[in-house]
Amino acid sequence: MSYNTFGRVFRFTTWGESHGPALGAVVDGCPPGLSLTEKDIQPFLDQRRPGTSRFTTQRQEPDQVRILSGTFEGRTTGTPISLMIENVDQRSKDYSEVAVAYRPGHADYAYDAKYGFRDYRGGGRSSARETAARVAAGAVARLVIPQVRITAWVEAIGGDAIDPANFDAEQIGRNPFFCPDAAAAARWEVMIDAARKSGSSLGAVIACEATGVPAGWGAPLYAKLDSELAAACMSINAVKGVEIGDGFAVATLRGEDNADAMRPGADGPEFLANHAGGIAGGISTGQPVKVRVAFKPTSSILTPVPTITRDGDATEIMTKGRHDPCVGIRGAPVVEAMMALVLADQALLHRAQCG
Amino acid sequence: MSYNTFGRVFRFTTWGESHGPALGAVVDGCPPGLSLTEKDIQPFLDQRRPGTSRFTTQRQEPDQVRILSGTFEGRTTGTPISLMIENVDQRSKDYSEVAVAYRPGHADYAYDAKYGFRDYRGGGRSSARETAARVAAGAVARLVIPQVRITAWVEAIGGDAIDPANFDAEQIGRNPFFCPDAAAAARWEVMIDAARKSGSSLGAVIACEATGVPAGWGAPLYAKLDSELAAACMSINAVKGVEIGDGFAVATLRGEDNADAMRPGADGPEFLANHAGGIAGGISTGQPVKVRVAFKPTSSILTPVPTITRDGDATEIMTKGRHDPCVGIRGAPVVEAMMALVLADQALLHRAQCG
Amino acid sequence: MSYNTFGRVFRFTTWGESHGPALGAVVDGCPPGLSLTEKDIQPFLDQRRPGTSRFTTQRQEPDQVRILSGTFEGRTTGTPISLMIENVDQRSKDYSEVAVAYRPGHADYAYDAKYGFRDYRGGGRSSARETAARVAAGAVARLVIPQVRITAWVEAIGGDAIDPANFDAEQIGRNPFFCPDAAAAARWEVMIDAARKSGSSLGAVIACEATGVPAGWGAPLYAKLDSELAAACMSINAVKGVEIGDGFAVATLRGEDNADAMRPGADGPEFLANHAGGIAGGISTGQPVKVRVAFKPTSSILTPVPTITRDGDATEIMTKGRHDPCVGIRGAPVVEAMMALVLADQALLHRAQCG
Amino acid sequence: MSYNTFGRVFRFTTWGESHGPALGAVVDGCPPGLSLTEKDIQPFLDQRRPGTSRFTTQRQEPDQVRILSGTFEGRTTGTPISLMIENVDQRSKDYSEVAVAYRPGHADYAYDAKYGFRDYRGGGRSSARETAARVAAGAVARLVIPQVRITAWVEAIGGDAIDPANFDAEQIGRNPFFCPDAAAAARWEVMIDAARKSGSSLGAVIACEATGVPAGWGAPLYAKLDSELAAACMSINAVKGVEIGDGFAVATLRGEDNADAMRPGADGPEFLANHAGGIAGGISTGQPVKVRVAFKPTSSILTPVPTITRDGDATEIMTKGRHDPCVGIRGAPVVEAMMALVLADQALLHRAQCG
Repeated sequence: MSYNTFGRVFRFTTWGESHGPALGAVVDGCPPGLSLTEKDIQPFLDQRRPGTSRFTTQRQEPDQVRILSGTFEGRTTGTPISLMIENVDQRSKDYSEVAVAYRPGHADYAYDAKYGFRDYRGGGRSSARETAARVAAGAVARLVIPQVRITAWVEAIGGDAIDPANFDAEQIGRNPFFCPDAAAAARWEVMIDAARKSGSSLGAVIACEATGVPAGWGAPLYAKLDSELAAACMSINAVKGVEIGDGFAVATLRGEDNADAMRPGADGPEFLANHAGGIAGGISTGQPVKVRVAFKPTSSILTPVPTITRDGDATEIMTKGRHDPCVGIRGAPVVEAMMALVLADQALLHRAQCG
Repeated sequence: MSYNTFGRVFRFTTWGESHGPALGAVVDGCPPGLSLTEKDIQPFLDQRRPGTSRFTTQRQEPDQVRILSGTFEGRTTGTPISLMIENVDQRSKDYSEVAVAYRPGHADYAYDAKYGFRDYRGGGRSSARETAARVAAGAVARLVIPQVRITAWVEAIGGDAIDPANFDAEQIGRNPFFCPDAAAAARWEVMIDAARKSGSSLGAVIACEATGVPAGWGAPLYAKLDSELAAACMSINAVKGVEIGDGFAVATLRGEDNADAMRPGADGPEFLANHAGGIAGGISTGQPVKVRVAFKPTSSILTPVPTITRDGDATEIMTKGRHDPCVGIRGAPVVEAMMALVLADQALLHRAQCG
Repeated sequence: MSYNTFGRVFRFTTWGESHGPALGAVVDGCPPGLSLTEKDIQPFLDQRRPGTSRFTTQRQEPDQVRILSGTFEGRTTGTPISLMIENVDQRSKDYSEVAVAYRPGHADYAYDAKYGFRDYRGGGRSSARETAARVAAGAVARLVIPQVRITAWVEAIGGDAIDPANFDAEQIGRNPFFCPDAAAAARWEVMIDAARKSGSSLGAVIACEATGVPAGWGAPLYAKLDSELAAACMSINAVKGVEIGDGFAVATLRGEDNADAMRPGADGPEFLANHAGGIAGGISTGQPVKVRVAFKPTSSILTPVPTITRDGDATEIMTKGRHDPCVGIRGAPVVEAMMALVLADQALLHRAQCG
Repeated sequence: MSYNTFGRVFRFTTWGESHGPALGAVVDGCPPGLSLTEKDIQPFLDQRRPGTSRFTTQRQEPDQVRILSGTFEGRTTGTPISLMIENVDQRSKDYSEVAVAYRPGHADYAYDAKYGFRDYRGGGRSSARETAARVAAGAVARLVIPQVRITAWVEAIGGDAIDPANFDAEQIGRNPFFCPDAAAAARWEVMIDAARKSGSSLGAVIACEATGVPAGWGAPLYAKLDSELAAACMSINAVKGVEIGDGFAVATLRGEDNADAMRPGADGPEFLANHAGGIAGGISTGQPVKVRVAFKPTSSILTPVPTITRDGDATEIMTKGRHDPCVGIRGAPVVEAMMALVLADQALLHRAQCG
């Protein structure tokens, strides 16, 4: 099946392929009366846009968004918001080899096995280019939850992590790596250059935090806030792991060390720790909501890898198209968008049931 | 909101509280004509059942399942299958303290913040007792995908992992820890006894593998097989992390090392590795589907922890009810059930679109 | 497929067969804190209950409802509410003939064509007995919208309609026909006795009106209030037509006669007519919401009708089980329940988007 | 709320306003490998297109559809199909009066009551112009069920019905009224001219029949085939009633007269009647599926009607924009499209559960 809609009451549907004429999203269920023009969306797309440094793919896409419906005189009307981004820099000729052979790590073989054939140009629908539509939709979601502030950053590249002691949120926007640690950013520059030159690629870990989320958001049991975040993040291209709060590390803690103890605060409880990442029983606690996401290294590499053709014959393939040496970097704005989309949906769900 | 239904076309809805008269699941969308009686479900419930060793809670629940609808003369009719399990060993008096104070790590505060009040007895709806209903539903799901074999095991407890060299699937059912490594099982016995005696608790990591999944299952983009598995596992009580395949480890690999290269095989491609956990682009590749899940240590401990009362006053709480010293152990059959439920749904979704 | 869930955020799932051990509903998404015990549900079930007069089936079912989850100390907790009604007066032996031959007008043949076989006892899942679960769920829905008053009545039986001039709401509960016109009730008594004695059956038209619905409920475009009501009513057994407001009669009006003109009122507009049945553009206008529903005559009759066996041979069948001579009569409480369920869902949907 | 998606596994989402830059649909869940280009869609849009005769609105819209995603080399890929139609002949200045006063029969007041404000130009989202997107999506749905033949026609205008004895399917495409009775078409021409000249409008009844539907499609209980058709048709602008088969007429029949008796046929049962409209228990019987739909007279009329302004003051309004004198006529291709969309969805749902 194909399920290109996400969300329960604040829903978005994306469409489009890497080398088709355009891609887009339809956002449905948005509250009316919110101020919305293209200018509210474009800055987020610009963060994710390719071709802005030598550390990302050299495909040149302006990623200009158009709002085709759902607003009137600069405000949302409560009807579906259609967002469209044109593709302008396709180079489909790069992909002739991909038409006949399967790139390991890509969805080529799986799509063929499922659908019988595929749009092989740039990965077609399985391309991370689709995430532009999510980022556009996410910009609308942010308007629904103005009290929430969402920040994502790259926490590690190729196993080289930031030093938490160096964390400086101001740094995130000052380097091409969404890196909050200036020293790490300098190291990553060297690492990525080297990986690119050797025809290789690197993985990354993205962290994302949302502050200002009130206690009480979450829809137990099968649309828990953490469950929805896990689904949202795992649906991003190249993601292989999701953690809430301390994640896998909690499996090594003892109960008394993992307990987020409380004491009376000015406005509800004051928590003495946040191992849980701001979520208990699938419901927000009022603490910062924290998620970590693992991105695999870009599967498109210039190193030849054994594979098979559509006809089942042995061959080797290396991917000559333009690609990110570390796809996780541009994942940061995408994780932010998914966080916004989940929280907006949960905010409205909470209002539906609990007023 | 409350969303107690999971699945797209093979759907189940669970209901019930820890100390209510019963709990259950309604399974909807099951194909007709499958042989189904209580005997097909009970063995899976028995695996998860409490009170069977000193390493789990001493609550004595027979967890006898009744099929109330959806079968006729021992076969599924295609109509909803209502499954009910009665609660017989509630001891609500243990929970008088919980009524007024919030247990850190539990959903007590979050439920109150969301709903205004809560059924505090045994955690009410937020109790892991609800997972019995999932296990029952999962047993039905297995009948839909008889070609698939699903096995979960405990991979680590309290940071002490099995030795992969000792992996022996036969061992899993021979100890109370679902442990495939006899030596690790012996160590865990000592660890858990110690944790229990000291009023503490331990976390765990569960691994689950499904073999026999054909290439082509998965519903891109927002119901990808890995996205659905992540949602399914993260909805289980106490889970804080989910990995597909190598998970967070891939973030440290280089592209050429992460590539699951292929060569011609007898029946489609033969893969030379499975870093991806059997899923590419959200679609199964025909390789084993692999997921790892992190369980936090049981939040109910006999060690006092600072907290606040409903009225906002400072207090301490320790949880005197009967509890698992390591809730992750009994998570193994639950992860298996969720794997079965996701795969059954994806199998039918695939058939819907692709025949 | 099988889709036994209705609703978007206030959802219910029903299960059970005519001759199984029980039937029930799980209500999910109900707001917390509402006062709810079995006593809030039972009166509505009693209205629909069989065996209370000679004008309905003689099957004796007490239809006692039990609440198995979702409440605590007499209030809803926001978690799923499981409602169960036991079947006590099955007489499956009446149905041996139905096992092998298809009753015209019933779902027998269609179920076999779809599912390959069926629970033929009393029609199995296709029995109108399932509507008891809807009525129970509907009673919960009413608590969500206490400002709304819903009244259904029988408008015509066998083509003999009430006289609008005689309409007296007080009469509805005073005769076994939910008839607001005492003169018509007297005629219907004779008609139904005659139909029953001759082994025949009669159709009916039910009208239902909801007052107190504020302007603004409805979810354009594909969950419009009228669209949801149409789906809800057409899903009731034996229903073949649904009208909103003047329904088919508007097709004969001219535009100026159909216009529901407005003038300033004390509290928003005052409408000069209500041809539209209180819905414009799929959204409530604040006027009474009006729906009319056509029930076919009971298909179970004592008159032999030509049909075929499961093996495809010609035969005749007459239905010897206990049946309503006019199934539409007991449809009145069911239409009321569906109106309540749709309005509760729309009320919460409206709150989700528009606060 | 706003719910602009219809369908369960074959789903479509529409977007767009009457006077926005464009409108469209995203079709998701379509099987792969179907031959699809704009040429497969355009003829259906041309049937519904305005401005083709003096009996429809004079707004000149070419309604040229573009496929923006979901196909490759002329075939569907199984990914979402984005369809876009540009608006080219908006005349928003006609609507200045509508900005401040509510047109009776229109959604003006209801939208304001719900959303607080509205895009008043041409009715915004509530305009029947949105049905172009449905017709485009419906053309894709037809490809999913090539064995099914769907035909809609106008059965009555302003209370003047066709003579069934004159029914000639060939006539439907030969007059601007989708009228199968040449004599009725001649009468309607006069009637509509008169209505238009007098600033009035007329209602209509549309009938639609689908042949070739196999027995077994339908998803009991809350996505029954008839329930889905009722929702689909009632969601069309101006529709106030839906009937399946004989509809309201069955309420006047006796059981033995309403029974669709069967005898052995060459290929399953041969039915001796089709009062039920090809659906029993919510499942298709293999007979033609029949639906009738009532359209109210166009609410936009040149006759002044009392109403109120946004500020609550009394006024009169007549609608000076370009409008259809009988909106039901162009409803015929829309009802066809909705029939196709429901049947395609049910076909895939049936395959999901029953193989």
